[in-house]
Amino acid sequence: MKIMRVVQTLVSTNRIDSMGHRPLLVVQEKEGGTPSVAIDAIGCVPGDWVICVGSSAARDAAGAKDFPSDLTIVGIIDHWNP
Amino acid sequence: MKIMRVVQTLVSTNRIDSMGHRPLLVVQEKEGGTPSVAIDAIGCVPGDWVICVGSSAARDAAGAKDFPSDLTIVGIIDHWNP
Amino acid sequence: MKIMRVVQTLVSTNRIDSMGHRPLLVVQEKEGGTPSVAIDAIGCVPGDWVICVGSSAARDAAGAKDFPSDLTIVGIIDHWNP
Amino acid sequence: MKIMRVVQTLVSTNRIDSMGHRPLLVVQEKEGGTPSVAIDAIGCVPGDWVICVGSSAARDAAGAKDFPSDLTIVGIIDHWNP
Amino acid sequence: MKIMRVVQTLVSTNRIDSMGHRPLLVVQEKEGGTPSVAIDAIGCVPGDWVICVGSSAARDAAGAKDFPSDLTIVGIIDHWNP
Repeated sequence: MKIMRVVQTLVSTNRIDSMGHRPLLVVQEKEGGTPSVAIDAIGCVPGDWVICVGSSAARDAAGAKDFPSDLTIVGIIDHWNP
Repeated sequence: MKIMRVVQTLVSTNRIDSMGHRPLLVVQEKEGGTPSVAIDAIGCVPGDWVICVGSSAARDAAGAKDFPSDLTIVGIIDHWNP
Repeated sequence: MKIMRVVQTLVSTNRIDSMGHRPLLVVQEKEGGTPSVAIDAIGCVPGDWVICVGSSAARDAAGAKDFPSDLTIVGIIDHWNP
Repeated sequence: MKIMRVVQTLVSTNRIDSMGHRPLLVVQEKEGGTPSVAIDAIGCVPGDWVICVGSSAARDAAGAKDFPSDLTIVGIIDHWNP
Repeated sequence: MKIMRVVQTLVSTNRIDSMGHRPLLVVQEKEGGTPSVAIDAIGCVPGDWVICVGSSAARDAAGAKDFPSDLTIVGIIDHWNP
């Protein structure tokens, strides 16, 4: 799993049906790094340091074996000093 | 998921049968970066900033559990300033 | 599989249910490198050099086909000089 | 999917049974880049620019759900100027 | 698949049960590069240039659908000049 920071929410009105209305978050491994998009399975806010799971595990973690995610936030880190 | 920009369509006449006639798009994380090829599940045009899913999720997102994709466009981003 | 070093334990109180109370460890390929988070399936301590498996294998290795892990520690290396 | 160029065929006499006698091709994203090995599902020749699929999709694309491939050539690109 | 060179065997006495007593080999894409650990499905020795498969294919290639490998050696290359 990766340690990433939540940067902002992402609006995508035109998306595939199977994604439903799940919130999308922009996350980054470090400031200025490449941004990725994660499904939030926890309820976090910009600024949180979180644990993101990838691979097929991201799908179950998002709530269903056939959910179209390859990066899902599965935990908020209590304390993190990058 | 990755944030990528649609660059152009890609013509591949000689392809495996299971790909059907699905449109292929060249996408890039940033200008001058390595180009990738994605299946379009939304209907987007060159210049759009899109959300691309990889891993096994790319297959279902392309429409079928056995579709041969490892990168599928699942959403268009409403506003994005890279 | 990757050769990584256990750096510290990681506390994440707010996590998805399917992760249970399994210990999370911060691991690194080399000092100063990008930290990752792994599920410990062996019982190791900070300083150990370990073998980490990714992909779908990380799930079974963590104990169940539907466990949300993409990086699981599957062995402790007896001797390693990086 | 990745855009890669076919460099040469690769001879591996001693291989696992499940690979059969399928031809193996060395492919590269760019000249001088790291070479990878792909299964050819199309019939291409050195010099061709091709589309390579990875992940679990590479297995079905190679012809069978249990084929041991993580990179399979699924299409030849008609025109490509890298 | 990746082209890698076998560097040495790796001893890991304390490992998860599902790995059995399968030999573990340290492999590298190039001299001085990051070492990875692969399961040997062929029978190779240090110095051999080999083909390594990742993803879920690494599991079947190691001998069983639930084997905890994400990198398995599936062939020895007859001649290779890196």
